[in-house]
Amino acid sequence: MTLRLDVALDERSYPIYIGAGLLDQPELWTSHIRSSQVCIVTNETIAPLYLQQVEQSLADKQLATVILPDGERYKNLDTLNQVFDGLLQAKHNRTTTLVALGGGVVGDMTGFAAACYQRGVDFIQIPTTLLSQVDSSVGGKTGVNHPLGKNMIGAFHQPRCVLIDTNSLNTLPDNELAAGLAEVIKYGLILDLDFLSWLEKNLDALQQRQSEALAEAIYRCCQIKANVVAEDEKEAGKRALLNLGHTFGHAIESHSGYGNWLHGEAVAAGTIMAADLSERLGWLSSADVERVKQIFSRAQLPLLPPKGMQPDDFMSLMAVDKKVLDGQLRLVLLRQLGEALVTADFSHEALQNTLSSLTSH
Amino acid sequence: MTLRLDVALDERSYPIYIGAGLLDQPELWTSHIRSSQVCIVTNETIAPLYLQQVEQSLADKQLATVILPDGERYKNLDTLNQVFDGLLQAKHNRTTTLVALGGGVVGDMTGFAAACYQRGVDFIQIPTTLLSQVDSSVGGKTGVNHPLGKNMIGAFHQPRCVLIDTNSLNTLPDNELAAGLAEVIKYGLILDLDFLSWLEKNLDALQQRQSEALAEAIYRCCQIKANVVAEDEKEAGKRALLNLGHTFGHAIESHSGYGNWLHGEAVAAGTIMAADLSERLGWLSSADVERVKQIFSRAQLPLLPPKGMQPDDFMSLMAVDKKVLDGQLRLVLLRQLGEALVTADFSHEALQNTLSSLTSH
Repeated sequence: MTLRLDVALDERSYPIYIGAGLLDQPELWTSHIRSSQVCIVTNETIAPLYLQQVEQSLADKQLATVILPDGERYKNLDTLNQVFDGLLQAKHNRTTTLVALGGGVVGDMTGFAAACYQRGVDFIQIPTTLLSQVDSSVGGKTGVNHPLGKNMIGAFHQPRCVLIDTNSLNTLPDNELAAGLAEVIKYGLILDLDFLSWLEKNLDALQQRQSEALAEAIYRCCQIKANVVAEDEKEAGKRALLNLGHTFGHAIESHSGYGNWLHGEAVAAGTIMAADLSERLGWLSSADVERVKQIFSRAQLPLLPPKGMQPDDFMSLMAVDKKVLDGQLRLVLLRQLGEALVTADFSHEALQNTLSSLTSH
Repeated sequence: MTLRLDVALDERSYPIYIGAGLLDQPELWTSHIRSSQVCIVTNETIAPLYLQQVEQSLADKQLATVILPDGERYKNLDTLNQVFDGLLQAKHNRTTTLVALGGGVVGDMTGFAAACYQRGVDFIQIPTTLLSQVDSSVGGKTGVNHPLGKNMIGAFHQPRCVLIDTNSLNTLPDNELAAGLAEVIKYGLILDLDFLSWLEKNLDALQQRQSEALAEAIYRCCQIKANVVAEDEKEAGKRALLNLGHTFGHAIESHSGYGNWLHGEAVAAGTIMAADLSERLGWLSSADVERVKQIFSRAQLPLLPPKGMQPDDFMSLMAVDKKVLDGQLRLVLLRQLGEALVTADFSHEALQNTLSSLTSH
């Protein structure tokens, strides 16, 4: 069974196809290619698994392939330049199409390369990790990291289509599946209490990688995100809700050196920090916070930031967050389970108490 | 006297202010800044001349300054990263405003940095060379070069406003004034025969840097370009006309190593190649071509490509031009003086004859 979700945006809409074995149905996605030139961008881990099959689906194209090193630490301008090198060496022009085959790093970098190459070319996403399937598939955020901040250099650029083959999750390491589940849980927490309950019932099936449960979870996450992005493509308001746990999480990733904590792991610990602060503000009960910890714990995710990370480390790293407005830190917190808000309306003391109680353990 | 031209675009309009001594009227442009953080980007040549005055105009802002090395050879991703370094070290957030103070390289890089920093921030242009005043002020093209091609990495990003102080041309070296005149002449050739005649009458005044003549020429160029860009912001069609001489010219710049030939010098020689090919196709008379050569010659511009550059050098460098569609080279040529067209409708032989007759001299 193939699920199809259409992401509606002003300038263009595009479909997300979700199902088991979709890589065996190339016409689903190759029909969205408008060019004779195509450049596949993937990484060293994914290439041995899926590159040959994708290349075969593009046998009638003028094809180039760029294989990047694997890992968040390579998500930078230098590695991005390898994509431009490949495109220019193969003399690809501005009607070329880029295909991102891999996880979030490959997707973000390929999308940003597509946004910038000759000032903008088409791209298609084939995300192969749970995290990228529920996160990067919708929203058009692309970019690279800077040593002083994550995702600080980038663009908004929408794909022509997204192909999600749930079978690709069979080769995903357990810790990466867990990291993806952190983002899945996040969707329930911020906007959909029903989905949170569904997840509590179906977490075992997801951890056992049952196709139908995976497809349904991915579909619901993409749908929630698509609704949010359709309202707020450029993140002026509602879209920021998607960043529950991310401001704390980015600080954790930055402090640990990119790639040492998986993004989803950092988001899990960061979400618990946000829940703790929400409880201090009187919005969540201690039972609510316990429920949040419980599901992250079942998903094999960390509940605390790394040992040795101090409150001051958080404060200094959070100062460059994209949600800082004129020097004032804004955070995504929980008004109740299933309802997030963006707010600067918390005391310095409450934030310090959250940081102190959850660090130095 | 201050001239004001409004560039009308779907999403936003912005004003270009043109006149002598406008840097002494800071309220003209600082009123377009919506943020408390401002980052000036300039280069080592311009900083000693104008930076202090611009900084004083921004005394009430949280100010950062990035001074780049001067020259086309630094228009690359590495130098771009210096702007991101400066922004992040000063903890500028996504409401910051970048101010480009300098010529085309500073403008293109600052605009691209603004397009990418935190996925897009405001920027203002203060172009200080004739070339950048008539070229980069309108159109929103930003970007950097790649060793394999000029402007291959970039974005479309519109400024909040443009301030053109014709007095800044008093410090411009003669060869850079001439290079700017090449683009000025181009506007007459492609779309405005009256303006070409005006230029033939007023070239001496422009070369003597008379303010009123400069302001009028700049205004007319920006107006022509604004009309073209309003019709075709993303360069699907008419906008390509602005690239008369540029496909040949980019090949010259690339072959010579960026910065050895000024962009305008390469455009002058490239325009004469386009005129020569247009004559071979029966569109221009030999008298027309002579008239083209005459005005470029009076403006102290080169009429031929660099010695030693061969027809094959052009063919191979032009193959990655952004106007190549599915492998077919398209060129901007002249149907008559004052009327350019984009066409692939020329024989390989005619192009080879143009290349042979104007190279190996």
